[in-house]
Amino acid sequence: MTDGPQPEQRVSGRSIGRLIQYRRALRDGAGEWGESVYSHQLAAACRVSAAQVRRDLMTIGYKGTSSSGYQITHLLDAIDGLLDGEHPVQVALVGVGYLGSAVLGYLFNRPKLSPIAAFDIDPKKTDRVIQGVRCYPLEQLAEILRAQNIELCILTVPASEAQRVADLLVAAGVRGILNFTPAVLHVPRHVFVESRDMTESLERVAFFARRSGSTTRKDR
Amino acid sequence: MTDGPQPEQRVSGRSIGRLIQYRRALRDGAGEWGESVYSHQLAAACRVSAAQVRRDLMTIGYKGTSSSGYQITHLLDAIDGLLDGEHPVQVALVGVGYLGSAVLGYLFNRPKLSPIAAFDIDPKKTDRVIQGVRCYPLEQLAEILRAQNIELCILTVPASEAQRVADLLVAAGVRGILNFTPAVLHVPRHVFVESRDMTESLERVAFFARRSGSTTRKDR
Repeated sequence: MTDGPQPEQRVSGRSIGRLIQYRRALRDGAGEWGESVYSHQLAAACRVSAAQVRRDLMTIGYKGTSSSGYQITHLLDAIDGLLDGEHPVQVALVGVGYLGSAVLGYLFNRPKLSPIAAFDIDPKKTDRVIQGVRCYPLEQLAEILRAQNIELCILTVPASEAQRVADLLVAAGVRGILNFTPAVLHVPRHVFVESRDMTESLERVAFFARRSGSTTRKDR
Repeated sequence: MTDGPQPEQRVSGRSIGRLIQYRRALRDGAGEWGESVYSHQLAAACRVSAAQVRRDLMTIGYKGTSSSGYQITHLLDAIDGLLDGEHPVQVALVGVGYLGSAVLGYLFNRPKLSPIAAFDIDPKKTDRVIQGVRCYPLEQLAEILRAQNIELCILTVPASEAQRVADLLVAAGVRGILNFTPAVLHVPRHVFVESRDMTESLERVAFFARRSGSTTRKDR
């Protein structure tokens, strides 16, 4: 669920999600597809319709010809240009508990968007390197974010602390928050928040799994 | 992003996401609001419009009167009835690495949807209790899922293993998968998949944060 404002633009949040998947499929499947790919191949790899692929690529202004397939390197350049922008975005993580540590480990050493700093209030965690990332005391948040030009933060603090820490992040100039807590964050309109609460995700799956099951033969 | 089929029904995936948030806000805010809540209060707590709240509650057939506010206990009963169904859904987790362990720890001992079994291929992890949950060898997957009537699985295996394990889950009768891997899963139509890839989430935040920043004064 997206809490923050959707910037006014032609490319919707859903298109962006699909473009991120197309990019991954193009990178993963490049060997298999050779130099070019048809919309139906990309569609099958991403479980969307070929028409959807063509619409999304038209939306971002990609001028490929679908009759002879899309040239993979050109298409990747076009998607990279849209998704990555001109300068890299620096990322930090706040809250190095179980989930925070796991997120750090998962994202460590990726070419892009790998956190370069972490923050916690627990002195046993601060001033150490955890999962390859230096962990600072929360009091140094504003200072470090500004010094390292960090504009995006991952929030893995307890729910009860989420709004207070989000306020600190906003005050320190952060423009995007990936919120893993169940808290609904109240932030100014210029800050984009993506909420990814695990419990909510699980409740959604449970709901739709049960619904789909009720229309399915029991003896499958 | 939702990979699986959306069952044909009036309640959309987005409504379900909001209803889950309403429920949480109703539980958290019940003390503050007393016995009843107005749509605008619930809306403010969940960062949606009051009209959206009223539409969602009408969609699920809730017969509250918005003029005098909604009675919180009745409203909670209505939402619980829709979201939780008649019998509890049992959950397992496959892949007890960093992320899997963190997910187990995060969900441990919740009243609902807390995993009751975990699976891994690493003998150092199996036949042990990890984060309060018994971890079994992957070979026992089908047997345990059937014996414990588990219909929903959380997938935290490496991306390269995701499809293979998903196939095992489907064969064992699982109806819902919460997929934390970046893999796009191919499953039969009766299985609901919700994909929650962290890298994709982060790329979305980076994209929208940059966009929103470009329309924001630099000197804020």
